[in-house]
Amino acid sequence: MDAAEAQFAELGYAGTTLREIAAATNVTQALISYYFGSKYGLFEETFLRRGQVISKQRIDMLETLLEKGKPTAREIVHAFLSPTLALRSTPQGRSFLRLQARLHTEPPEISYKLRTHAYGSSTQRYVEALRLALPKLGELDAYWRMTLMVGTYLYAFSDTHRMEEMTPKGLYDPEDTEALIEQVTRFVVGGFQAP
Amino acid sequence: MDAAEAQFAELGYAGTTLREIAAATNVTQALISYYFGSKYGLFEETFLRRGQVISKQRIDMLETLLEKGKPTAREIVHAFLSPTLALRSTPQGRSFLRLQARLHTEPPEISYKLRTHAYGSSTQRYVEALRLALPKLGELDAYWRMTLMVGTYLYAFSDTHRMEEMTPKGLYDPEDTEALIEQVTRFVVGGFQAP
Repeated sequence: MDAAEAQFAELGYAGTTLREIAAATNVTQALISYYFGSKYGLFEETFLRRGQVISKQRIDMLETLLEKGKPTAREIVHAFLSPTLALRSTPQGRSFLRLQARLHTEPPEISYKLRTHAYGSSTQRYVEALRLALPKLGELDAYWRMTLMVGTYLYAFSDTHRMEEMTPKGLYDPEDTEALIEQVTRFVVGGFQAP
Repeated sequence: MDAAEAQFAELGYAGTTLREIAAATNVTQALISYYFGSKYGLFEETFLRRGQVISKQRIDMLETLLEKGKPTAREIVHAFLSPTLALRSTPQGRSFLRLQARLHTEPPEISYKLRTHAYGSSTQRYVEALRLALPKLGELDAYWRMTLMVGTYLYAFSDTHRMEEMTPKGLYDPEDTEALIEQVTRFVVGGFQAP
């Protein structure tokens, strides 16, 4: 599954073949088909093994916050982002983040069901929590901003190397993970608090 | 090129073959190779034919704003987003938006040069304009927020159908383009204005 994760991340769903995954892992294609049924089956398992963990971690962190009292928008956004940020500490985790960023531009029949399966319920709970923290935020606006937060972090955490390209030399440190989460959190909280 | 745009958008770079594009357009693969050199050559032309227009429109709109006086952050963000939003009015334009959203998760050798070629100089001018509009915004923060704005709109304009999935029935109208740009603008301006 690690090999599949790396291939799906690098080449997308359509660009990945079971033949190449078999070659990378020294198992036969028949064995992969036996365990996962098809390329889609393998993709599904590869995505869900991490997606479900992220979703569970998000819910746990939100519940911890709610037990302590009334969390701020900043605390809620930080809790939402933290489980995915943690994936950036290993190359394999980074592969997943690219795979996940790609997932949203894959054809609907590949992406929708999986995304909802993994993230549907945790996302709803964050929308509710954010509306409690920001009482002026209407229902539709809350969903919009949740969606825009997802777009923002998927891009920011996916090694798109846009910052390296744009910034004058020496200004930006690509290894500074603290700066990454701080920048994304501040931007997103600003977005949630907008009038 | 329209056929290539649709295929690259739907299947990504690795998933697209010259053979299928040739079949979709009723020309021979040899003719495509003759005109574009290779799959990468075709991808490059397909991306740049719109990317360069978007970049030029962004610069023109920014110059119009600057001639009229000192633009607000909201006006600058709106000018940056408008040329891509206009692409959403045709299916072919929407294909480009998906292709472009995918571009950032394609392997570096496919994506970096093209992105910088199309958008490098217009992006720099927007960073400068935004720093004039928001004097407290530091240089590194300005680049960060520009990057996060790009991530936000790429996701929001790419028909990811996330809003349809999440919102209660009847709350969200996917055809409401005005709401789309208004939501993205407000969120991004909030992000730029964050402390």
